[in-house]
Amino acid sequence: MNQSETPATRDPTDRRPRWRLRLEHWIEHQWPQTLIIVLIVLNAITIGLETSDAIMAVAGTWLKLFERVVIVIFVLEILTKLIAKGPRFFKSGWDIFDFLVVAVALVPAAGPLAVLRTLRIFRVLRLLSTIPRLRQLTESLLAAIPSIGWISFMLGMVFYIFAIIGTEFFGDTFPDWFGSVGASMYTLFQVMTLESWSMGIARPVMQAFPLAWLYFVPFILISAFTILNLFIGIIVNTMQALHWEEEEEKRLVTAQKAHDEREEMLLLMRDNNERLIRLETRLEPDRPLD
Amino acid sequence: MNQSETPATRDPTDRRPRWRLRLEHWIEHQWPQTLIIVLIVLNAITIGLETSDAIMAVAGTWLKLFERVVIVIFVLEILTKLIAKGPRFFKSGWDIFDFLVVAVALVPAAGPLAVLRTLRIFRVLRLLSTIPRLRQLTESLLAAIPSIGWISFMLGMVFYIFAIIGTEFFGDTFPDWFGSVGASMYTLFQVMTLESWSMGIARPVMQAFPLAWLYFVPFILISAFTILNLFIGIIVNTMQALHWEEEEEKRLVTAQKAHDEREEMLLLMRDNNERLIRLETRLEPDRPLD
Amino acid sequence: MNQSETPATRDPTDRRPRWRLRLEHWIEHQWPQTLIIVLIVLNAITIGLETSDAIMAVAGTWLKLFERVVIVIFVLEILTKLIAKGPRFFKSGWDIFDFLVVAVALVPAAGPLAVLRTLRIFRVLRLLSTIPRLRQLTESLLAAIPSIGWISFMLGMVFYIFAIIGTEFFGDTFPDWFGSVGASMYTLFQVMTLESWSMGIARPVMQAFPLAWLYFVPFILISAFTILNLFIGIIVNTMQALHWEEEEEKRLVTAQKAHDEREEMLLLMRDNNERLIRLETRLEPDRPLD
Amino acid sequence: MNQSETPATRDPTDRRPRWRLRLEHWIEHQWPQTLIIVLIVLNAITIGLETSDAIMAVAGTWLKLFERVVIVIFVLEILTKLIAKGPRFFKSGWDIFDFLVVAVALVPAAGPLAVLRTLRIFRVLRLLSTIPRLRQLTESLLAAIPSIGWISFMLGMVFYIFAIIGTEFFGDTFPDWFGSVGASMYTLFQVMTLESWSMGIARPVMQAFPLAWLYFVPFILISAFTILNLFIGIIVNTMQALHWEEEEEKRLVTAQKAHDEREEMLLLMRDNNERLIRLETRLEPDRPLD
Repeated sequence: MNQSETPATRDPTDRRPRWRLRLEHWIEHQWPQTLIIVLIVLNAITIGLETSDAIMAVAGTWLKLFERVVIVIFVLEILTKLIAKGPRFFKSGWDIFDFLVVAVALVPAAGPLAVLRTLRIFRVLRLLSTIPRLRQLTESLLAAIPSIGWISFMLGMVFYIFAIIGTEFFGDTFPDWFGSVGASMYTLFQVMTLESWSMGIARPVMQAFPLAWLYFVPFILISAFTILNLFIGIIVNTMQALHWEEEEEKRLVTAQKAHDEREEMLLLMRDNNERLIRLETRLEPDRPLD
Repeated sequence: MNQSETPATRDPTDRRPRWRLRLEHWIEHQWPQTLIIVLIVLNAITIGLETSDAIMAVAGTWLKLFERVVIVIFVLEILTKLIAKGPRFFKSGWDIFDFLVVAVALVPAAGPLAVLRTLRIFRVLRLLSTIPRLRQLTESLLAAIPSIGWISFMLGMVFYIFAIIGTEFFGDTFPDWFGSVGASMYTLFQVMTLESWSMGIARPVMQAFPLAWLYFVPFILISAFTILNLFIGIIVNTMQALHWEEEEEKRLVTAQKAHDEREEMLLLMRDNNERLIRLETRLEPDRPLD
Repeated sequence: MNQSETPATRDPTDRRPRWRLRLEHWIEHQWPQTLIIVLIVLNAITIGLETSDAIMAVAGTWLKLFERVVIVIFVLEILTKLIAKGPRFFKSGWDIFDFLVVAVALVPAAGPLAVLRTLRIFRVLRLLSTIPRLRQLTESLLAAIPSIGWISFMLGMVFYIFAIIGTEFFGDTFPDWFGSVGASMYTLFQVMTLESWSMGIARPVMQAFPLAWLYFVPFILISAFTILNLFIGIIVNTMQALHWEEEEEKRLVTAQKAHDEREEMLLLMRDNNERLIRLETRLEPDRPLD
Repeated sequence: MNQSETPATRDPTDRRPRWRLRLEHWIEHQWPQTLIIVLIVLNAITIGLETSDAIMAVAGTWLKLFERVVIVIFVLEILTKLIAKGPRFFKSGWDIFDFLVVAVALVPAAGPLAVLRTLRIFRVLRLLSTIPRLRQLTESLLAAIPSIGWISFMLGMVFYIFAIIGTEFFGDTFPDWFGSVGASMYTLFQVMTLESWSMGIARPVMQAFPLAWLYFVPFILISAFTILNLFIGIIVNTMQALHWEEEEEKRLVTAQKAHDEREEMLLLMRDNNERLIRLETRLEPDRPLD
């Protein structure tokens, strides 16, 4: 929750001078953070406006100027963080992410690298690292990914096997769809999403290979079944993480309360037991205790 | 549950005279309510019939007459509620909803506003506010929306980023699909629903840009994953609200019963303890109590 | 489970003579039932074979003869059941279902009623009533339907409202898709299944009405959200019915065991308490009991 | 988990000489296993490369040589397993699977059997049996299949009934789609996946048979409902297997702890009870015990 609010106080091996800790806290939790969020949103809008030729004709100069101001501020922010955190900067995945997103903006957007210019829209993704709620959400989404690792690998195998078969059988007749393993995998991805799989792909193929339905129908059934299980994996994971923790907590509270009450009872009983033993010894001092 | 049955008795700051409370109860819970429901259903049917030229030629006059009668009754109902509730009328979302739906019917349906005439079918939605079971259902559906807020925002970001990229890369070659950010977002919505995404959009684009699958396939995977998580959010929310409450209740009943039994045992034991202490003191009066 | 195995012994108001009870048991649980299942399956196959002109040319006479034999046996079975059960026959939904399915076969399949001939394939559905496992499954599927009643009604409202709007706005320009309320509802059903909604319907409509996306996109979002909730209703229902019963049972067993143990402890303690009270009175007979 | 690690020590009826047990363990758990995995992956890549004519022209000889080496090693591995395990080899589904996959490679890939050559890509599936994690996953996926048995049978019935009806009604007019029961079933599978069901199939059919929507819409609703229930079956199954076991375990631990505490209390109380009885008898020796 508030783990990021006092990062400087958490690591005893951290021997940075006090002003750098303060600088880190200031840049990450004071008004600079709000400024950055506002700039990201405004910049997202201006990048959108820049796609329109009409708007560029009217306000292009101002938009480009704003763009430069934004980049300068972003670079200053990253530099401040680098100064404040030192080598620790590169231990945080989120900081590296911010660094790369801003770095892309500094590449000269001309010649063969012009394509990079478009990537500056990825700066919007900085919202994910800057708004705490989105940061948590992103982390929980990413946490769900490992649980689908092996089943994704299995799905990849199914794709590869069917792609090889498709290429060997249909490749010569339908080079656009099954001309290479890559083309076949794209076509299978389309089939898996069920888009035009029959009218667009399977029926034409079946004109040339009447038994081709033995290829498409099992592929759809297998991939649907695998994806279903992949989804179930994510659902089960999310539900367990979300729900059962609090359920478990409540159950533990009840169990603890019951245990405490039994504990009290045991103490009383042991006391009664001792008293009874004392009574017996007193009433019959010569008989040995049992 | 029955919170709407005696609204007049619930708010101590309510200083309306008794006849207005009674009027409110009468208009909301007696035969006027049944009449309104019947009229909404009949009106829905006549609006449907009015779309047919053949039926209008035969019974148009009667249908229009009925329409006017319905509007008059609806207006009278709203006025009665306004009189009965006074300013409180505008505190209830449902009442404001009814008010707007009826108000639309009074706008002169001619000239540039003719389009509003079609909106009178929204009157059917008054069933949502009038039939208690539908009212609950609507409220529970609306209650599920906040839980999808941040993830919807995230989905919006994904859409915006891909729309910008699509517009910059494909905008000039495919102006119908990617000509502006708006057009791109509509196309991406279509791609997200998987409708003709490959045969209709991606394959033609890949004729001009062979690497365009690097745009479409990740978009589909990311949006499918995000939407899956959005759905899981709703499912988890609904299940928790529906189920675990009663589960929890049962568990609490069992725990309470066990606690009561232990309570009884403790009382008995304390009593035994006291009696034993008394016995000891009596048998050995000079020895100090421990 | 085995409720259907001894139906004759269950109802004390049943005053049928013993031979009719036996007849009912014989027809429903002995070899006739196996014969009926075999005949249904064979008949399903022959009906399939009859759709092929080539097979009909070779074996048509035999297939038709077999068909008649099957019908005669089915009629005899129903008559036997009618005799055995009397008016009770029409109290069982499953029996009425069997009766209707067989009755259709007796309608003269000529002239305007020739269409009914095709319906004899519905006889396959008798498997649902004859195989106990399928009967249970069907009943559990039907039991899930009421839980979707109100939300289906809501979905119907959404369809009707959008159908009216679609007819009024687009009806004249696109009579095939939105020419009448019925045509619009069919089109909306297609849009809801996401089939060609954009390339096939929405984009052409947007050529004439550029703002038509304000009609299609919200409809898709609303109907998807409603259907999602409808599905959740079914899922929650099924899971509760399937799982929590056994979970609850286990929990109750644990709770009961704990209660029994506490019960035993209480008995012991009450006994100890009484003994202590007796001890006190004996040791100090003149002091009043507290 | 580690059941496969010491297979030789598990079955007391196993009277193989010690060297065969060691051989089995060596071939299944030592470096041969790693070699096999590496070879499967490399072979999968070379089979992919062989689909490209350009690559075959350059490196075809080497690829074919590698292919032969791989087959020889696979055959040696299977033979070693056969020697080590003897008749037990054919008791393991996984071993038979490996055997068949390798056997296919030995069939002369010429003449009418050339098609089998393509099937060697199925060797990739050996990864499922060789990597323990994938083996578990496969087993858990296969375990989910029985739970969908009856509902799949029901879905098959629905398909068959609609296929017969479709063939009889639409077969003559649309022979491509409904010409035979097989063609109809394929078309219905396409309709069930919602691919082009309306624009591609239903609307053209409705041109000839205006009431055909009474065939398509119910089929979609019924099959969607059945498939939904089939999915729910799998989901419920998976969740129960995954989650409730551990939940149950935790619950049992809590219950056991509570039981132990009560057990201790009972022992103390019985002791107190005996002591009190002894006290009474001593204080009033002539009175009979109650």
